[in-house]
Amino acid sequence: MPRLILLRHGESVWNRDNLFTGWTDVDLSEGGVAEAHKAAELLKRHDITFDHCFTSVQRRAIKTLWIVLDELDLMWLPVDRHWRLNERHYGALQGQNKDEKRCEVGEEQVHAWRRSFATRPPALTEDDERFPGHDRRYSTIPDADIPRTESLQDCIARTLPYWQICVEAALMDGRTPLVVAHGNSLRGIVKHLDGISDDDISGIEIPTGIPLVYDLDEALRPTGSRYLEDTG
Amino acid sequence: MPRLILLRHGESVWNRDNLFTGWTDVDLSEGGVAEAHKAAELLKRHDITFDHCFTSVQRRAIKTLWIVLDELDLMWLPVDRHWRLNERHYGALQGQNKDEKRCEVGEEQVHAWRRSFATRPPALTEDDERFPGHDRRYSTIPDADIPRTESLQDCIARTLPYWQICVEAALMDGRTPLVVAHGNSLRGIVKHLDGISDDDISGIEIPTGIPLVYDLDEALRPTGSRYLEDTG
Repeated sequence: MPRLILLRHGESVWNRDNLFTGWTDVDLSEGGVAEAHKAAELLKRHDITFDHCFTSVQRRAIKTLWIVLDELDLMWLPVDRHWRLNERHYGALQGQNKDEKRCEVGEEQVHAWRRSFATRPPALTEDDERFPGHDRRYSTIPDADIPRTESLQDCIARTLPYWQICVEAALMDGRTPLVVAHGNSLRGIVKHLDGISDDDISGIEIPTGIPLVYDLDEALRPTGSRYLEDTG
Repeated sequence: MPRLILLRHGESVWNRDNLFTGWTDVDLSEGGVAEAHKAAELLKRHDITFDHCFTSVQRRAIKTLWIVLDELDLMWLPVDRHWRLNERHYGALQGQNKDEKRCEVGEEQVHAWRRSFATRPPALTEDDERFPGHDRRYSTIPDADIPRTESLQDCIARTLPYWQICVEAALMDGRTPLVVAHGNSLRGIVKHLDGISDDDISGIEIPTGIPLVYDLDEALRPTGSRYLEDTG
C-alpha cells in the first residue's frame, strides 16, 4: 500500500536567532545539521525507505535532504524541488526579531501573525530587496503568483496544488515519496491528509527532524501515521 | 547563444588507491573534495553560470555537483541523474589494483583494457555481488541493458542517447546545462561535439575538477571551447 514520509528541516540559523525567516534563504544551524543526521538515523533504525524526493527551493530544506540521502546511501534518487513547498512568506516581517516586534506592536498582534489562519503580515513592496521577484530562482513564477506576504491559508493554498499534481501522482505511480519541507507547507499537507479544520491547523506543531510516516489506502486516505520518535 | 559546461568529478578514494573503479560507488577523497571547491571557485571567478544540472547516479559525481551548487548558492536548481552518465563499467576488474593486474597479465593487456576503443575487460557474471542488477538503483534498467563490462565504445554508445534526449533538449529549450560526470562518459560527449575519431578519443584526457565550457551555435555545433584553468 502507498506510503509517504514527511520531514521538517532542522533548526536554521534564524530560528536560533529568533528572527522571522519565511523566504529568507538561511542555512541550517549546527543544531539543524545534527537534527538532519538524527532523522537519517531514525529512518535507518525503523527500516523506512523511499524512492522519490520532493523539497522546496530553500537551502535549509535541501541541505536537510542531502544529509539524509548521504547517510542512507540514496544520493542517486530523483529529487524534485519546487517553490510551492517553501515556507510561508512572512512579508515585511522577514529579518525582524520576534521579541522586538512583540515590544513594538504587542504580543496579541504577533500572535495573530504567527498563529491565525487568515491573517497576513504587512506585505513587501516590489522595490524591497527582499521581494522574491528580484531572486533568480523565482524568475519563472508569473508575477501575480509571487508572494508579497502570506497567511497560513495562502501558504496552504499554493502548496496543495503541488501536492496533488506531483506528490499524489508519484504515490499513484507506486512510488514512496519523502517530502522535506517547512513548518507551514507541511501543515498544509497534514491538514489535507488528516482533514484538520481551519481553526485547528495552526495549533498543530510538526517537530523538526522527526520523520512522519503516513500509510495510505488506494485512494490515498491515511490508514495510519506515526512519528519515528527517538525513544532509545 | 547556447552554452554548456562539462565537469569531471574530483579524485575518488579508489583513484587515490590505484584501484579499477568503474561502477563501484566510492566517495571523493579529501583531494577530490578540494577539487570540487576549486571548480566552484573557477566558475565564480570566470562569472560562468548555468541553470540545469545533469549527473550520474554515482556518489563521486553527485557530491562534486553538491559542493559546486552549495558554493555558488544554486542548490535550488533542477538536477537530473541518470545511469547513462555513469563511468564506464570495468567488468571483473573493478576493485583490483592496477599495478598488481599489470604484474599478472602484462602492461600491454592492461593498456588495451584502459586505452583501446573497443576492448572489453572480463565480464562480471550475474552471481557476482558486483553485478549492477543486485543494486536497487539499477532496478529500472532492462536486464539486457545492464552492463556486465564495457569498452570505451560501449560506454559512449549508452551515454550519447541520454545526451541527445535530455541535454540537447535542455539546450534547445534555452537552458545552460552543467553536466558533472566521469572521464569516459564525458569522453563520449566531447567526441560527439568535437568530431574526434575512434582512434583518437582514448588519447584525450579530461582533467578532474576543471570546468570545460562549450559555446555552441543554434544547431548545437561548438563555436569555441575552453577549460577554466586556474592561472593565478
